[in-house]
Amino acid sequence: MEKKLTSAILLVEGGALDADLRYLTGFTAPDPVVALAVGSQLSLVVSLLEYGRAVQVVQRGRVLTPQMLGLKGPPAGDVSAWAKALLKQAGIRHVQVARHFPTAVADRLRRHRIRVDVAAGPLCPQRRCKTAAEVQAITQVQRAAVKAMKVAMNVIREAEVDARGFLRHSGKRLTAERVRDWIEHSLLESDCVAPETIVAGNTQGADPHERGYGPLKAGYPIVIDIFPRHRGTGYWGDITRTLIKGRPKPEVARMWQAVAAAQHAALQACKAGVSVKRVHTTAQKILRAHGFETTVKNGWGEGFIHSTGHGVGLDIHESPSLNMASTRLRSGDVVTVEPGLYYKAWGGVRIEDTVLITPGGIKWLARCPLRI
Amino acid sequence: MEKKLTSAILLVEGGALDADLRYLTGFTAPDPVVALAVGSQLSLVVSLLEYGRAVQVVQRGRVLTPQMLGLKGPPAGDVSAWAKALLKQAGIRHVQVARHFPTAVADRLRRHRIRVDVAAGPLCPQRRCKTAAEVQAITQVQRAAVKAMKVAMNVIREAEVDARGFLRHSGKRLTAERVRDWIEHSLLESDCVAPETIVAGNTQGADPHERGYGPLKAGYPIVIDIFPRHRGTGYWGDITRTLIKGRPKPEVARMWQAVAAAQHAALQACKAGVSVKRVHTTAQKILRAHGFETTVKNGWGEGFIHSTGHGVGLDIHESPSLNMASTRLRSGDVVTVEPGLYYKAWGGVRIEDTVLITPGGIKWLARCPLRI
Repeated sequence: MEKKLTSAILLVEGGALDADLRYLTGFTAPDPVVALAVGSQLSLVVSLLEYGRAVQVVQRGRVLTPQMLGLKGPPAGDVSAWAKALLKQAGIRHVQVARHFPTAVADRLRRHRIRVDVAAGPLCPQRRCKTAAEVQAITQVQRAAVKAMKVAMNVIREAEVDARGFLRHSGKRLTAERVRDWIEHSLLESDCVAPETIVAGNTQGADPHERGYGPLKAGYPIVIDIFPRHRGTGYWGDITRTLIKGRPKPEVARMWQAVAAAQHAALQACKAGVSVKRVHTTAQKILRAHGFETTVKNGWGEGFIHSTGHGVGLDIHESPSLNMASTRLRSGDVVTVEPGLYYKAWGGVRIEDTVLITPGGIKWLARCPLRI
Repeated sequence: MEKKLTSAILLVEGGALDADLRYLTGFTAPDPVVALAVGSQLSLVVSLLEYGRAVQVVQRGRVLTPQMLGLKGPPAGDVSAWAKALLKQAGIRHVQVARHFPTAVADRLRRHRIRVDVAAGPLCPQRRCKTAAEVQAITQVQRAAVKAMKVAMNVIREAEVDARGFLRHSGKRLTAERVRDWIEHSLLESDCVAPETIVAGNTQGADPHERGYGPLKAGYPIVIDIFPRHRGTGYWGDITRTLIKGRPKPEVARMWQAVAAAQHAALQACKAGVSVKRVHTTAQKILRAHGFETTVKNGWGEGFIHSTGHGVGLDIHESPSLNMASTRLRSGDVVTVEPGLYYKAWGGVRIEDTVLITPGGIKWLARCPLRI
């Protein structure tokens, strides 16, 4: 499917990873880049350093250097002059930009009477529904994530439990750090990077973003959340399992059963045309039916304190969010389904898979067991 | 040394790594964050999910959730309401923001008659001169980079050269990808990540940002540029060596000698009080004296086509840039010194170290041999 652009879109990147830029141009760079898309016409301004690579990568657009626009190199980090010269050459006086477009550049363009409108939603809404090639790219990285998860599951399965309840492997206490090392070595072999892998044992998982540290204990939930990015394609994958070594504390066992049931029901509810709210409330209801309430006290939340999922693509978090909105799922959405429960006394339990939405329900991108 | 802030600074991050935010608060998050610094008074708004971690990490500031500001959670990616409520509570109607501050948030605040000024230079200029603790953090990651470089040097030293001039190691042709794997496994052991390590052999290094691929050949320059970030501290390191296996092509040998001489002279020129232009022109003159000219034809540059170096800290590229500016080096600057030569016919040669500027010259953070 050819994806069409309908208005002038301006992108400015100062060296960060920008998913819209990569989507539209196929190009990413550590140096500043300015891109202009008018309908399907694409122009890109890159530094002299990037020119050679950009002309090879950008298939359907014009690549320019500041010199070609009659400019000398700008001071570091300031590409307002590139943007201004590019718009002047193209005869464009009105552009749409992303929410995160740099204020410095917007101010400068506006001083030159160029109208800069922030897009109300995503700058490239066409990114949401994935093409077959994109589904393939996400499947590739999701398989790498599952492979790494299985490595972690294997290590925890092989571990022994000492008299004090600590896990031991290869003659040493098994720590979150060592498990993360195994995961990351596995991901490297798949040409993926995962800068923020979570291995949170004991009660650490009660904070859903705690990366985790120190010795792992039997009976407590070990939240392992792997979200790698493939270095070649730039697409992300996302999977979470909550593993328990030995006999779980009774409360932990109940939490795990509730979350597994909620994930199953939420996955069953997913289908093109269904509202994201329906999926989210499905998970909420099951967790409540299992007796788990969500509360906020003194700024701390406990229970099911996040949305049920998010889109995955060139950004790890993108549209649609599976929350209380009225948005409907569409064929071609790739989303995570990841209910969880978080209690300071017991830790966290989260179970997450990334799936493709189809007219009939979901299609798994990669399968992974739920337990060790 | 205590670093002081003098005016109201507003930071808004939508999940990216922001060095200013980390510098001021010690905190980073995958979720949106709003921070306000008024003199040495710091306030932070984070989502409920991040609250627990934020109160532990942020030592000298106030951590708030949107709920504490009387708000319900905002729609994904939109923290304008957080910023507005925080400023209202603090009674602040005029803020300084970074060049890359999101236009959507600036527009919204301005509609509420808050004055939003983009800082003319860096938002936190005090980041430039590193404290002893920061120098220690950069030294740690620079040592990890040197360790990984030595692993790569060792592999190339051990390699054999087959009849067609290709490098062989462990019974297989040695590729850029395999060398990069060794480097990255070594970095992981030091708790560092390096998403863009360059191993560019043959003539690939003629493009300074080409990551490199495929079998490596004897006689050609192999540019290895390792710039890892430590996951704990967030600080970067940066080192480049250009290795040659076997007898170099005569032109390559001349390039290598010229770049090594230019780097030596530029390092000698570095000292607190010396202008960056003086360091840059020192490198330029030596390269020219060795007969290497810099030219631009049809958008392609050849010769010495970049600046001599850049500051390194919580950003991989920060102030000062060692270019034609009149800025003077200061004690406490941590900078790379990295002249290079790039010719399509011969590839690239670049030699780079990261050093601390002192009143008397430079202090090495970590030493690494220049040759295998």
